[in-house]
Amino acid sequence: MRSVRPHNTRKAGLSPGTLAERESIGTAAFITIMSYNEASLEERNITNLDELKQYKTSDKVSWINIDGTEDSESLSKIGEIFNLHSLLLEDISIAGQRPKVDDFDDQLFATLNMLSYDDKKNCISVEQISIVLGPNYVLSFQEAGGDVFDPNRFRIRTSKGKLRKSPSDYLFYTLIDTIVDNYFLILEKIGEKLEDIEDALIAEPTEDILNELYSIKRELILLRRSIWPLREVLMKFEREEFEQISPTTQTYFKDVYDHTVQIIDTLESFRDLSGGMLDLYMSSISNKMNAIMKVLTVISTIFIPLSFLAGVYGMNFENIPELKNKYGYYIFLASCFVIIVSMLAYFKKKKWL
Amino acid sequence: MRSVRPHNTRKAGLSPGTLAERESIGTAAFITIMSYNEASLEERNITNLDELKQYKTSDKVSWINIDGTEDSESLSKIGEIFNLHSLLLEDISIAGQRPKVDDFDDQLFATLNMLSYDDKKNCISVEQISIVLGPNYVLSFQEAGGDVFDPNRFRIRTSKGKLRKSPSDYLFYTLIDTIVDNYFLILEKIGEKLEDIEDALIAEPTEDILNELYSIKRELILLRRSIWPLREVLMKFEREEFEQISPTTQTYFKDVYDHTVQIIDTLESFRDLSGGMLDLYMSSISNKMNAIMKVLTVISTIFIPLSFLAGVYGMNFENIPELKNKYGYYIFLASCFVIIVSMLAYFKKKKWL
Amino acid sequence: MRSVRPHNTRKAGLSPGTLAERESIGTAAFITIMSYNEASLEERNITNLDELKQYKTSDKVSWINIDGTEDSESLSKIGEIFNLHSLLLEDISIAGQRPKVDDFDDQLFATLNMLSYDDKKNCISVEQISIVLGPNYVLSFQEAGGDVFDPNRFRIRTSKGKLRKSPSDYLFYTLIDTIVDNYFLILEKIGEKLEDIEDALIAEPTEDILNELYSIKRELILLRRSIWPLREVLMKFEREEFEQISPTTQTYFKDVYDHTVQIIDTLESFRDLSGGMLDLYMSSISNKMNAIMKVLTVISTIFIPLSFLAGVYGMNFENIPELKNKYGYYIFLASCFVIIVSMLAYFKKKKWL
Amino acid sequence: MRSVRPHNTRKAGLSPGTLAERESIGTAAFITIMSYNEASLEERNITNLDELKQYKTSDKVSWINIDGTEDSESLSKIGEIFNLHSLLLEDISIAGQRPKVDDFDDQLFATLNMLSYDDKKNCISVEQISIVLGPNYVLSFQEAGGDVFDPNRFRIRTSKGKLRKSPSDYLFYTLIDTIVDNYFLILEKIGEKLEDIEDALIAEPTEDILNELYSIKRELILLRRSIWPLREVLMKFEREEFEQISPTTQTYFKDVYDHTVQIIDTLESFRDLSGGMLDLYMSSISNKMNAIMKVLTVISTIFIPLSFLAGVYGMNFENIPELKNKYGYYIFLASCFVIIVSMLAYFKKKKWL
Amino acid sequence: MRSVRPHNTRKAGLSPGTLAERESIGTAAFITIMSYNEASLEERNITNLDELKQYKTSDKVSWINIDGTEDSESLSKIGEIFNLHSLLLEDISIAGQRPKVDDFDDQLFATLNMLSYDDKKNCISVEQISIVLGPNYVLSFQEAGGDVFDPNRFRIRTSKGKLRKSPSDYLFYTLIDTIVDNYFLILEKIGEKLEDIEDALIAEPTEDILNELYSIKRELILLRRSIWPLREVLMKFEREEFEQISPTTQTYFKDVYDHTVQIIDTLESFRDLSGGMLDLYMSSISNKMNAIMKVLTVISTIFIPLSFLAGVYGMNFENIPELKNKYGYYIFLASCFVIIVSMLAYFKKKKWL
Repeated sequence: MRSVRPHNTRKAGLSPGTLAERESIGTAAFITIMSYNEASLEERNITNLDELKQYKTSDKVSWINIDGTEDSESLSKIGEIFNLHSLLLEDISIAGQRPKVDDFDDQLFATLNMLSYDDKKNCISVEQISIVLGPNYVLSFQEAGGDVFDPNRFRIRTSKGKLRKSPSDYLFYTLIDTIVDNYFLILEKIGEKLEDIEDALIAEPTEDILNELYSIKRELILLRRSIWPLREVLMKFEREEFEQISPTTQTYFKDVYDHTVQIIDTLESFRDLSGGMLDLYMSSISNKMNAIMKVLTVISTIFIPLSFLAGVYGMNFENIPELKNKYGYYIFLASCFVIIVSMLAYFKKKKWL
Repeated sequence: MRSVRPHNTRKAGLSPGTLAERESIGTAAFITIMSYNEASLEERNITNLDELKQYKTSDKVSWINIDGTEDSESLSKIGEIFNLHSLLLEDISIAGQRPKVDDFDDQLFATLNMLSYDDKKNCISVEQISIVLGPNYVLSFQEAGGDVFDPNRFRIRTSKGKLRKSPSDYLFYTLIDTIVDNYFLILEKIGEKLEDIEDALIAEPTEDILNELYSIKRELILLRRSIWPLREVLMKFEREEFEQISPTTQTYFKDVYDHTVQIIDTLESFRDLSGGMLDLYMSSISNKMNAIMKVLTVISTIFIPLSFLAGVYGMNFENIPELKNKYGYYIFLASCFVIIVSMLAYFKKKKWL
Repeated sequence: MRSVRPHNTRKAGLSPGTLAERESIGTAAFITIMSYNEASLEERNITNLDELKQYKTSDKVSWINIDGTEDSESLSKIGEIFNLHSLLLEDISIAGQRPKVDDFDDQLFATLNMLSYDDKKNCISVEQISIVLGPNYVLSFQEAGGDVFDPNRFRIRTSKGKLRKSPSDYLFYTLIDTIVDNYFLILEKIGEKLEDIEDALIAEPTEDILNELYSIKRELILLRRSIWPLREVLMKFEREEFEQISPTTQTYFKDVYDHTVQIIDTLESFRDLSGGMLDLYMSSISNKMNAIMKVLTVISTIFIPLSFLAGVYGMNFENIPELKNKYGYYIFLASCFVIIVSMLAYFKKKKWL
Repeated sequence: MRSVRPHNTRKAGLSPGTLAERESIGTAAFITIMSYNEASLEERNITNLDELKQYKTSDKVSWINIDGTEDSESLSKIGEIFNLHSLLLEDISIAGQRPKVDDFDDQLFATLNMLSYDDKKNCISVEQISIVLGPNYVLSFQEAGGDVFDPNRFRIRTSKGKLRKSPSDYLFYTLIDTIVDNYFLILEKIGEKLEDIEDALIAEPTEDILNELYSIKRELILLRRSIWPLREVLMKFEREEFEQISPTTQTYFKDVYDHTVQIIDTLESFRDLSGGMLDLYMSSISNKMNAIMKVLTVISTIFIPLSFLAGVYGMNFENIPELKNKYGYYIFLASCFVIIVSMLAYFKKKKWL
Repeated sequence: MRSVRPHNTRKAGLSPGTLAERESIGTAAFITIMSYNEASLEERNITNLDELKQYKTSDKVSWINIDGTEDSESLSKIGEIFNLHSLLLEDISIAGQRPKVDDFDDQLFATLNMLSYDDKKNCISVEQISIVLGPNYVLSFQEAGGDVFDPNRFRIRTSKGKLRKSPSDYLFYTLIDTIVDNYFLILEKIGEKLEDIEDALIAEPTEDILNELYSIKRELILLRRSIWPLREVLMKFEREEFEQISPTTQTYFKDVYDHTVQIIDTLESFRDLSGGMLDLYMSSISNKMNAIMKVLTVISTIFIPLSFLAGVYGMNFENIPELKNKYGYYIFLASCFVIIVSMLAYFKKKKWL
């Protein structure tokens, strides 16, 4: 989440619908398949893309997961096999898309951001995921390996819940649901960090806290950019009638939509809270400055006049009568004492001490 | 209200519609029933859940209150008895839901936050409450014991008002009305605190006031998160035609809706007010800093030059004619006096004194 | 306008539609009646509430004004006589309602805030007024005596304008129009204050100005809370077809609506202006601080090194050759002069002087 | 544009539809007429109001311009002649109306603000103008003489463009178009000022710049108040079908509407820019403060310890061995030099120098 | 992008639909033509405007690019040849239009801003481009030479993609698509700058960074003004049915619209980020000030009292017993040491060191 640049880097002027031809150092796409119905489950990896054709017409539900969207050659082939629209392929191949949903005749196409918290780097990592829902298959395209779908795989394997008994649109739904659920984990992490910062702030505001606060604000800004369009996408699932999605599954989308709204609410609260903390920080800094200045002023105000007095009696005028007074020195000390005490009383009254 | 984390902690990837299985240390659910018609009232606790079945088909109105939504086993059983949808049960069992209303055929399901002011901890405590309205029963699910419904119970027992004579939708309404009415108490508490802070601020801005102000802003943020969705919920009650709610009762919901809007208005005013107070605080701090700096500057500006002068006549040059002057010392003192007086006049003119 | 608390203080949990039973120290309601048609005018006070019945069926237009909504007993009786809905009576009896309009069959019910500027206390005073429009009567309920309706009474008495010739809905309109017109006076007062503050700010920013500015921001926040909902109310009068209001009168409401929009525009401008003034204040304070610091720095920077120099030649080392130099003292003085002049030139260049 | 008060000063409680009776010192209205068709043009002043009647039924297009809306007597007469609605006349006679358009049967009534930049006073002057479009005449009411319509008059006189060939609605359009075009001049002035301020700010932030910036923000606020409602007005011309305006003319209004939107865009940019400049100013002030404080701190930190050292050797203890050392003085000087150099190195490292 | 003035400088009061007659120093328009179908391509420059007529009725698709919209004479002639509406010609000839689309019977007219990053001046340069889509031609009017369309020309020449096979509406689309794609490059530049600033800020906040940040905020404000209306324009292409655009091409506009929304999202994030950076800057400045003040205070607090002490024993009173004490000097030094150490301990405790 370092980069603040927009990722959509299709070379300006490229023919629309063209796959971005990256430096082909990109590793080849890695494809796994889970093909199931209530009774049976087939799970395998594929290297020969032609084998994919059978899943297009199979009567089982097939979840075809492709890791590595940089492999434009494989993408084109898959596009050919499943009749994917050229604009759709372009969207898959270019990272940094805005979350959206598109309806292509018998296919439904959704692009989302898969967020996960990278504990090592202590930051949020974003990966674009594109999901295509076809009549009896779901294609999921990920930028790289490693995802949040292990629970889904587990449920398919163990036949838990209604997943194995349901058509492909329910699988489509559970994938999206899992992605959105992961956002809560991110929020929880941020919430924890905010609480830590708050505690630290109230104890002792330091510049480190400020930087941490800033980096959280930064994360919130980038999260917002991911999640606001997501809400629109899910609203479409809830409100519009996509023929690819059965009414039964549509009711489930209502639930995911509710979660997104809740996520946005929380995000906004976090924004407000971090704003409030910044105010608190600034005020604390001002207060500390005041405290420092008070010390300086008290010390200066007491001793600068006294120093002047001492300076006076350190002068070498031949005729300074006080100097010859036997008790002159003691009178001087007494005067100093009186001045100090009355000054302190004055500052006490002014509540500077 | 300490935690700023989102509470919706369904383990990501759990099958949707699954009850959250908490560590089962959770105490068993505690169920109380008030079953009444105009003529009679039955009030009891239930331990054997099977006894609940009779209230589903009774021709009295039954209010079944369940304390302890952590007891997932009881929840499932109750869900079975009253045919509660699995998503609905999930929402009940997971704390931290966004307020919402759902329509399930013959049942209406509302989730709200029950706020109360905890005088001991001096903070607002939030508890989720889920209310199910069925044909002749109302189920209310609370996270824990202790609620705001004593006035409702009192009115049922004493047959005050039209509650005893009305069907279950009116009971449903009075419960929600009571919850919303309690929000006014919270606002009143916050309003009082704000007034106290304002008075303190104008008298003498201290860091404690700042922290208090921050904690109020924090509470307002979290209140907002509770109340904004509540408005949407109540708007639905007012505008949409739920077949479970009779037109007579619906007009009452208009009143509750008005109250929520008023609460939100007040909340926004409080936000503005606390923002204004922060500005006032910051300005006061700056003003105090100015006052401090003025003192320092006045003292320094007067005595630093004088000290230099004294230093000059404390030098040990062999030939300093002034030193031999008989009245040198007195001339020196007179000069100092003149300098001090003219400096003071200057500062007076500059309004620094 | 001291209190920032929400006023809606119906004891939480009270049966809806219940009159708030205040400590009955409240003085009894004071009722005046103006009953008129084009030809005749009857004006009187009433103490026996039963006398009100005649005005319900009179063929004259009757304006019944009730001062003192705390007298719940009288309220109930009046409610009975004019068939007022229980929720309506509740709204009348509880101060601090949000402005709103409700349609009860043959009656139209409006709640507004009557604002007036209290010159003595130098603040805005708010009083809730509830107006009921019936077929041939208008009931106006005020919290206490003293209102803004003298011009209306004058016009009724003198038969000026079309008031005496028009049915009750026109009277209803003129009352609301008068209330809204009074808002302009409030705005004018605030506008004057803002101009004064602005002038004072530019002349010399003091802490008093800050406090005044804050109190105006406070008033603007509270005004907003009164006037925003008022706009909604008047929009309803303009747009919706209330059968109690004739089309002729409805066109007049368009005018009042325009005024409210104008009031809101002005209010927003005032908000922006006062925000701009706060910025100006803060910047001025910073500027003054800079000026103060410059003085301190200039004085210190010039004299601290010189004092050091004087200190050096005040040392008692046995062997300090300069001290024995005949012109040592004069060289010292000359050096000081050079240092001072070059310092001043430096500060001049830096524009600190 | 000095006054921030709302101008709508109809005495509260006045009968609606009443002309404001000002102190009749107001000069008499001054009326000029241009009556034309494609072939001929009649241009004259009128003093006897009765002569106006002919233009109501003339088959030429007549543009009747009335300067001086304070002359309520003339206004009434004109109102009578052209059947102007009483509310309309009220709106004309009271300055400070919100821009709006009203449809009165065969007449269309628009109130606008005519802005012009007063180079002498260096401020924007606002004048309300009310325009009535009748079947074959246009009435324009201005507060005082002097307007922006010279180009329109020129086009009528010279038969330039399609004005002379078109019916009254086109004249109506060109008047409004001219008023809106003048807004661009105002914006250009403000844009120039903003650029000047920006240059000055980057060169050297002074308090004068701050005051200028504030006065621009003030102007922007007041402009906003004029222009936002204008947009609504023009949107109505573009969208709604007024039967007084032919479809041909309506397409031209689309153009004016586009201009208003562009004006608002620019205004908002100006707001943002001036906000950014204020931030820049505040930061610059803080930076200057830092620079000042650095100088003070560097000087003090170097010389205060040295002064102490000199003070030590200026003490009169009988037994201070260093004083008797032959090279004591030189060692002292050397030490001072070392201290100064190492301090400077330290500050250099801290980037304070 | 220096100028913040509104560019729309039609002389106020000019007859609407009049071409702005600039000082005719403007160079003559430079016209290039690409006329193609799938089989053939003709590419040429034109100096005699009459030659343009053939392209109006040609059965090839013609892209006529006019550089130099200041040449009002040529513009009029072209307008005549292609029947361009007078308002349309006015919009072309005046720079600084708001992006918009207009439907003129068989022609579709779009005005856009063509942004490009000027690496030399290190700023964004804006050029207005007006595109007219006719039945079989596209006219593009640019203010000056030099544009972003080289990739489009390349694709036409090399027959790459479907451009050569498609009718004029597809060419129209690709031009707009190329313009919008270039916005991403701008955003990338700004994103890079923001990252640089962020890194610099965290390392060491200087006034230069502040100025850079301000200039980016400025650019963002002006970009906003260009891009917001663009979104509206593209929404129209996506939603409305323009008969000049075939449904096939319309689906492509959906893609461009998505890009604009993404651009706006990114822009808003940049705004938030730059706002956050300003906060960070201000806080850093405050922190540095605190650090500076601490140093000053520590030094002053330690040495000012010590200097006073030294001053005391530098006094010339005849009777100061300590001075005669043999170890007086050493006791004095020891006292100073103790004072310094305890002061340092105190500051350590206060975390000022």
